[in-house]
Amino acid sequence: MRYELYYWGEIPGRGEYVRLALEEAGADYVDVVRKEGAAPLMRILRDEKLEHPPFAPPILKAGKQIIAQTANILMFLGARHGLAPAAEAGRLWTHQLQLTFSDFLVEVHDTHHPIASGLYYEDQKPEAHRRAVEFRKVRLPKYLGYFERVLENNSRGSRHLVGGKLTYADLSLFQTVAGLNYAFPKTMKRAAKKYPLVMGAHERVAARPRISAYRKSDRWIDFNEMGIFRHYPELDG
Amino acid sequence: MRYELYYWGEIPGRGEYVRLALEEAGADYVDVVRKEGAAPLMRILRDEKLEHPPFAPPILKAGKQIIAQTANILMFLGARHGLAPAAEAGRLWTHQLQLTFSDFLVEVHDTHHPIASGLYYEDQKPEAHRRAVEFRKVRLPKYLGYFERVLENNSRGSRHLVGGKLTYADLSLFQTVAGLNYAFPKTMKRAAKKYPLVMGAHERVAARPRISAYRKSDRWIDFNEMGIFRHYPELDG
Repeated sequence: MRYELYYWGEIPGRGEYVRLALEEAGADYVDVVRKEGAAPLMRILRDEKLEHPPFAPPILKAGKQIIAQTANILMFLGARHGLAPAAEAGRLWTHQLQLTFSDFLVEVHDTHHPIASGLYYEDQKPEAHRRAVEFRKVRLPKYLGYFERVLENNSRGSRHLVGGKLTYADLSLFQTVAGLNYAFPKTMKRAAKKYPLVMGAHERVAARPRISAYRKSDRWIDFNEMGIFRHYPELDG
Repeated sequence: MRYELYYWGEIPGRGEYVRLALEEAGADYVDVVRKEGAAPLMRILRDEKLEHPPFAPPILKAGKQIIAQTANILMFLGARHGLAPAAEAGRLWTHQLQLTFSDFLVEVHDTHHPIASGLYYEDQKPEAHRRAVEFRKVRLPKYLGYFERVLENNSRGSRHLVGGKLTYADLSLFQTVAGLNYAFPKTMKRAAKKYPLVMGAHERVAARPRISAYRKSDRWIDFNEMGIFRHYPELDG
């Protein structure tokens, strides 16, 4: 069965967390919008009759099943492709970490859109500046410090967030750190020294053969100023 | 086994979504902070050695297992207490709805805290006002319209979000509407006419014997201006 991923084609965004899991799993999938444009995605979003309508992309079609919410899709893929532990406690712990990445991501997004996602950044610059200061000083260290501690306390070693094997949580750590490096290079240069285990986990995912090949392929989308991780130098510091 | 819930004792907040599931399930649980104060919660949050540290409350202890992230806890309780379908597709759909309630909740919170959760509302009032206007005009109708459509399209009837039985998603709908009614009474008075199925689902949960008894008990915490749903008349309209 070929999975169909429906997500905006110009940005890594939340869809990238799903793309990374599909790539690492070596799954057969099509990134529909990149291939056919946004019309098929819009058809799903505007389908008034769908019994299980998605609120927003990313959306994964797996046969007849339509699954939305990034963390939910990853839980589904994790179980199918060995990207999460099989036992319930480990599954829940992996998911708990993923939900914390989701929370982190909202806060990253809101550094440039603290008032409304429907407005331009240019329409909320003073507020963005204020929120970005708080983000850099309080929230970013809180989140990165948390994941550093998770790696440190893992009784199976500090190479992975969960147990002794790669999970989708590691892939999400990779993407989150990559995005932060892009958006807040000055802040992250200082942070790198404080969170060596997080940085190590990020680099190990980057070096994995399938992820490395994916990043060199034309399927990979560079970070840009339309996505969640945006580089506005005035928000870094 | 007696569950232990660790959450701030003065607010409904995110913990209330867990309390409602425990109450509806008739589960044996202790709301630790309400009984013993915040010290036991702080001990968990400050425990540097915990292998699976929670990022933030609510936290549920079930025997030796420590589970955090509201939606994750509900998935765990849902499976144990018949508050979600047993089959995978139904479980994922219920969880997908719950994650959408989680997203909605962040946006409700950020109407009064658009800059930083660590600052007082009074320190971000102009920004809050701007964000609240966007919330009332764009985001609230988008979310309530979405849940209205989910109820409308449910082939098993519009009494529940998922299938023909109560799930934790219905309990979360109840709490979300109750909170919005408290925080934005004027806006919600108008909204009630537009989203009759949502309002009906809210009322049916309120009338359930265990929920009704819970709301009359001293375990119930009223909405207030320390929680997520706060009534600041200047943000309503």
